[in-house]
Amino acid sequence: MIHLTLIGIGTGNPNHVTGQAIRAMNAADLILLPLKGDDKADLAGLRMAICRANLTNPSTRIAPFDLPTRDPATPDYLTRVNDWHDTIAALWRAEIEKHLAQGGGPNVALLVWGDPSLYDSTLRIADRVAGHLPLTLSVIPGITAIQALCAAHAIPLNDLAKPVVITTGRQLRSSGWPQDADTVVIMLDSGAAFDALPPEGIHIWWGAYVGMEEQILIQGPLAQVAETIRTTRAKARADHGWIMDIYLMRRTAQPSA
Amino acid sequence: MIHLTLIGIGTGNPNHVTGQAIRAMNAADLILLPLKGDDKADLAGLRMAICRANLTNPSTRIAPFDLPTRDPATPDYLTRVNDWHDTIAALWRAEIEKHLAQGGGPNVALLVWGDPSLYDSTLRIADRVAGHLPLTLSVIPGITAIQALCAAHAIPLNDLAKPVVITTGRQLRSSGWPQDADTVVIMLDSGAAFDALPPEGIHIWWGAYVGMEEQILIQGPLAQVAETIRTTRAKARADHGWIMDIYLMRRTAQPSA
Repeated sequence: MIHLTLIGIGTGNPNHVTGQAIRAMNAADLILLPLKGDDKADLAGLRMAICRANLTNPSTRIAPFDLPTRDPATPDYLTRVNDWHDTIAALWRAEIEKHLAQGGGPNVALLVWGDPSLYDSTLRIADRVAGHLPLTLSVIPGITAIQALCAAHAIPLNDLAKPVVITTGRQLRSSGWPQDADTVVIMLDSGAAFDALPPEGIHIWWGAYVGMEEQILIQGPLAQVAETIRTTRAKARADHGWIMDIYLMRRTAQPSA
Repeated sequence: MIHLTLIGIGTGNPNHVTGQAIRAMNAADLILLPLKGDDKADLAGLRMAICRANLTNPSTRIAPFDLPTRDPATPDYLTRVNDWHDTIAALWRAEIEKHLAQGGGPNVALLVWGDPSLYDSTLRIADRVAGHLPLTLSVIPGITAIQALCAAHAIPLNDLAKPVVITTGRQLRSSGWPQDADTVVIMLDSGAAFDALPPEGIHIWWGAYVGMEEQILIQGPLAQVAETIRTTRAKARADHGWIMDIYLMRRTAQPSA
């Protein structure tokens, strides 16, 4: 029986790591370290630095492996993502089986950027692996980009006793401002989905690389700062070769309808 | 100039505390420790234990003080809460001024359950204090009850690329299931707001004292487990004298409308 632990490590600030995460890293016989595409150098380096800074168990083995990319030939977004998760699950399984064949112990861990519950595929991939290997699963929570964004701007997520919608750039483009809330958090935006909105009466708090040394913050009325966010984002992405950003928007005025 | 740091400490598991939070505690000259009503014994004890476990700076002083309760004579909910925040801000200010008058240093910290951004009043109270004292503010993110709930149940918060609504028991009772999402997280529910919903097609993951030793978890189709949650919650509340709970619901079937 494999015991798989998904460990949230926060958004790239090594000091986001919790005591619980450090204990779980040190309880692992094997830590899977996925390396992916554009952000490979920076983020894999950060994950490795977090392992090195916190691992005191000399028998914990770190196994870096290359993540595949999604197949652009698959037109449907959800199918493309689901196929990709199948491929990643097969890679995890291969790494785990190799480790066991070499006499490795049953405790396997995977470090997850942010928190395993929030717009992250590791729980879905773990379910696929559990279909092929006997597996128990535990999850260690981590600081999400939402907390890191709000902390960096020193703002509350919600208005007093009011709801919040967390959604994606794709959903914002297709469905517009959600009906249920005056506060919206946008994740996974490949670029300026806020352009889909009439900007009047909206305040935006934007952040890239939140929590990291490279952190960039911009906030203000959307009509005034949208262009600055677009150009700052494009430049940062070009400079780093990758970007992770997130933003919160609040309607300061109710729509007239 | 006072430097005030609001430190998220997670949901009661001392191992939720991050390295960043520990550094901030030890950089403080004064840590304000609010004690409130029913949960005074347990939660103040936990906060104090978290301070003791992580404080290595002998000159950091801890100042416990009694929080007032909201005035039940004020009928409007938001007015009642706003008045209460005014009163708490005056108490913070008095504690800080007393500390300064005794020659204390300028770094003041406050430990916040969960994360300062999420259904927490400390940022609003700090704004009020900043109206009377020269103040700079920083925020250290912490693990929220949402992450702790999802981790305990080992479930994702969102369906793949889908939105999530975070709202309150009060809002759920008054507005029903939100229009924008098939996943809803309910916080601040004084008891069984899910009774306001037709239970068909809804799965619920409920947790009380999430992350703590006392943690209780129940999950299942709402129609099957609602009564168990109600009775378990009532008993736990009676046993402890207080309760903190949270739940996530997902619609597994779309409404026919």
